[in-house]
Amino acid sequence: MHHHDQPSGIYLISPSGAVRDPQTVELAAQRLKGMGFKVSVDRSALAVHERFAGTDAQRLAGIQRAIKQKHPIVMATRGGYGLSRLLPHIDWQAVADSGKTFIGQSDFTAFNLALLAQTGACSLTGPTAVFDFGGKTVDDLTQALFQEMLSGELEILSFEAPDADAVDARGILWGGNLAMLASLVGTPYLPRVPGGILFLEDVGEHPFRIERMLAQLWQAGVLDGQQAIILGRFTEYRLAEHDQGYDLASVVGWLRRTVKVPVVTGLPYGHVKLKATLPVGAQVGIATEDGMAHLVLQEHHH
Amino acid sequence: MHHHDQPSGIYLISPSGAVRDPQTVELAAQRLKGMGFKVSVDRSALAVHERFAGTDAQRLAGIQRAIKQKHPIVMATRGGYGLSRLLPHIDWQAVADSGKTFIGQSDFTAFNLALLAQTGACSLTGPTAVFDFGGKTVDDLTQALFQEMLSGELEILSFEAPDADAVDARGILWGGNLAMLASLVGTPYLPRVPGGILFLEDVGEHPFRIERMLAQLWQAGVLDGQQAIILGRFTEYRLAEHDQGYDLASVVGWLRRTVKVPVVTGLPYGHVKLKATLPVGAQVGIATEDGMAHLVLQEHHH
Repeated sequence: MHHHDQPSGIYLISPSGAVRDPQTVELAAQRLKGMGFKVSVDRSALAVHERFAGTDAQRLAGIQRAIKQKHPIVMATRGGYGLSRLLPHIDWQAVADSGKTFIGQSDFTAFNLALLAQTGACSLTGPTAVFDFGGKTVDDLTQALFQEMLSGELEILSFEAPDADAVDARGILWGGNLAMLASLVGTPYLPRVPGGILFLEDVGEHPFRIERMLAQLWQAGVLDGQQAIILGRFTEYRLAEHDQGYDLASVVGWLRRTVKVPVVTGLPYGHVKLKATLPVGAQVGIATEDGMAHLVLQEHHH
Repeated sequence: MHHHDQPSGIYLISPSGAVRDPQTVELAAQRLKGMGFKVSVDRSALAVHERFAGTDAQRLAGIQRAIKQKHPIVMATRGGYGLSRLLPHIDWQAVADSGKTFIGQSDFTAFNLALLAQTGACSLTGPTAVFDFGGKTVDDLTQALFQEMLSGELEILSFEAPDADAVDARGILWGGNLAMLASLVGTPYLPRVPGGILFLEDVGEHPFRIERMLAQLWQAGVLDGQQAIILGRFTEYRLAEHDQGYDLASVVGWLRRTVKVPVVTGLPYGHVKLKATLPVGAQVGIATEDGMAHLVLQEHHH
């Protein structure tokens, strides 16, 4: 984490899917400059190979350059698919030793979690350049939360959680995209976080698939001993007539009956415009009270 | 496995998704009777709870009744979603000790693999009542392969495999639906099959998701030491413009470059009408020659 009084520089890389419209990266760079950041775009950030932002070698080279360049923040242009292939080929210790603050989302969950698993180092999840800063509009709160997290000013993230279980706990915050997390189970890239605080989101996954992934985490022992499971947004799925009333609420009910871990709902995080910037691998606190949840982040800088 | 000269009895259960049209089960029962089987339908086979064929308790009771009834074969009416929830609650030793031959597909892969993992017992994958015997037509070859497998007459399954790597090996056959298999990684329900022969199929999964699941198996060590990976049908996915040429062939190419295991294509198995009935957990042989693959099954009865 960095705590400069002056905003610092951001280096944009594309470790996952190809950028479809280069102008979105240009617009994102302008917007980030408007916030006071210096911005550099990696030379292969706009590369295209099949559905990927360049070949595996190109995307790995982009990560290597990101480690060595001068800006303290490294942001993914977008998610998609592509990091899974790269995980065994990334020098995680070099990533950790760089001291850079890496940020991304969705497919980037593999990066966040592998870095934590392999080195214990912290990184961020939140905005990506194209989705959050490269479109027609920018969500003001998303931008504010991003800037406050980077400057170390964000101490508590409070959000409405009317359906939350009672909890008051401290632990390591970890998680991200559920499908990516589930895809790491059994591999050396899933961190073991005893007493952790696990947050999850997903997009385009039917509730039965969300439940199947949660069942895997449950049966693999990943949920054992977690202090809380915080649910972000699960969006863009379609229920069918034969679901006969089975929906996301059914899944949350099943989770509560099955796993003895408090569930907190309402986290502003997911494949949506309004999203918090969250530290993956940092010590945090979580407490619920009067229909609100409070994620205490002030301990993230250590 | 059973080797009666006379066809024996089949007991139909619904451990997964709800049967949508009861007439399909009635028609399947008639067709199976027409093949010479006696057929009984479990009393909760047509139950409906949300998207499931009854509550978890109802579906578990159906499995318990299947163990205790008289017919030697137990067939799932259909797949869907539902076994994942039940895995920790099934008495696997009782299933193995029953000596029954269980058969199903898709979601039923969880049953096949958990039984193998927990007890070493063999079961079958292939036709389900509704999909294969409850529709307008029945595939003659699917029916013949089903009957020959049950009677122990099927010694070698030969199929066109023009893109197969050279292989001549013997080992335990295991696998089924890739998404279900991947969902078991890290849990006590994924068997460890050193020197195994792994077969896979899937439906409605984009190639990038197929690859992500294979990457998980690779990085989790599941593919290490396998003697062959046999690919069945991967169907009903839709490529997008931004895939830019990335397709199922790209995935197979990536798999071959990444994992040092011979890949055999063309297995008639998947969410398609023409499918073999295969033993999960039995010793088999696999050999390729002149664009053909030969799966030697005669050792399946032991």
